[in-house]
Amino acid sequence: MSDNKPVIVLVNPQLGQNIGKAARAMLNFGLTEMRLVAPRDGWPNPEAGPAASGADMVLDQAKVYDSTAEALADCSLVYASTVRRRDLVMPVVAPEEMAREIHANEGRTAILFGPERSGLEGSDVQLATKIVTVPINPEFGSLNLAQAVILLAYEWSRGAGEDLVQPTMKDAEPRAPMGELNALIDHLDGALDKAGYFFPPERAEATRTTIRTLLTKPGWSSREISAMFGIVKTLAAPYDRSSKER
Amino acid sequence: MSDNKPVIVLVNPQLGQNIGKAARAMLNFGLTEMRLVAPRDGWPNPEAGPAASGADMVLDQAKVYDSTAEALADCSLVYASTVRRRDLVMPVVAPEEMAREIHANEGRTAILFGPERSGLEGSDVQLATKIVTVPINPEFGSLNLAQAVILLAYEWSRGAGEDLVQPTMKDAEPRAPMGELNALIDHLDGALDKAGYFFPPERAEATRTTIRTLLTKPGWSSREISAMFGIVKTLAAPYDRSSKER
Repeated sequence: MSDNKPVIVLVNPQLGQNIGKAARAMLNFGLTEMRLVAPRDGWPNPEAGPAASGADMVLDQAKVYDSTAEALADCSLVYASTVRRRDLVMPVVAPEEMAREIHANEGRTAILFGPERSGLEGSDVQLATKIVTVPINPEFGSLNLAQAVILLAYEWSRGAGEDLVQPTMKDAEPRAPMGELNALIDHLDGALDKAGYFFPPERAEATRTTIRTLLTKPGWSSREISAMFGIVKTLAAPYDRSSKER
Repeated sequence: MSDNKPVIVLVNPQLGQNIGKAARAMLNFGLTEMRLVAPRDGWPNPEAGPAASGADMVLDQAKVYDSTAEALADCSLVYASTVRRRDLVMPVVAPEEMAREIHANEGRTAILFGPERSGLEGSDVQLATKIVTVPINPEFGSLNLAQAVILLAYEWSRGAGEDLVQPTMKDAEPRAPMGELNALIDHLDGALDKAGYFFPPERAEATRTTIRTLLTKPGWSSREISAMFGIVKTLAAPYDRSSKER
């Protein structure tokens, strides 16, 4: 039995009822860890409990975060549940492949879900390692939040009973938690900013997206991120000095 | 594309809303044929439409029957969606196996679902060829009608595939030729050397190996390598200048 249960992260969920339904969907397949990023109506939400139909333990243990990055800090493998994004160059996997990878991953994993109406924003999708898309009817795609959660939870559970660990899927070293990658990106960003890299300003956001995607793609381990940190710090030293001199 | 789409048969459904939700669940995975056996509140039901979120064509085509036997008359393979029944000696399959069998079957197939509160009665289950049971958390089994429908429709669709939008399994951009990666590594190496990174000298070779491994792992595309080049050149600019000044 793989005990690598993914954390379910709901980003800006709107209705308490839907948070409750998501909890119910999770617990049907044995998932218990829910994280909420800035739920619109605060937390706890009195409408969540009745909709959970008994899955109160999931709601009681749910943790609230201010930002998606904080909610993912201890996770080394993150899937963004969304349709294909033409604006982002990211790997897209089907639920089956996601499930296989989660079972093979040694660190913590998370699955991100966006708000009910709008879905995940690009900036949140970019925090993920990959996009996971449920293949649906191209002429009628209408999955609500709890349905998306239950399908991915079900797919995860299908592999949970067997010994699915596939050595070929695994990297030699486990992926570092997202918090370490984010620290690297922040440091690089600071140095590039001082070096005048983000010019013109209207391109800055797109450039930052590119950098994040570039550095998320490798799936570096903690050791590798630490080595990259050394490289970036060495190169950025003149900028660090110049800022101190100012 | 297997066009053996199972008929979804709802036996004595209670709420129009749940019939609508079941229609929505079906159409997400391309299933369009719904049959209703003696719906409690008659048919059509004004509450079904709004809950179907656009899957009206399923509701419009739904046929009503007086008995389960009549609803199944043209089907050669029938699954009763229910938990295992200790009172009935019948084969029980998991959703995967059901899907495989449906795709292999030449005649029409149907999946039976019982009323919301009580589930299928023994007399209806016995009309089926087999029982299909979604493996759920033994300590918390709480699937509602639409959830049961969506999980089995999804499982069916996994084998039907071709017409559904399949996510691409590979990255959108091909890996860059090694020459481009080597040029990036060389440039970085030159900058790091000037910055005094390769110290002590006896560690230099191991450090260079680490850097190469780090940068080979991502499988960056030409576009991505070009972006990394920009980053490295920006950070390395002070070293380039200092070497020219010497």
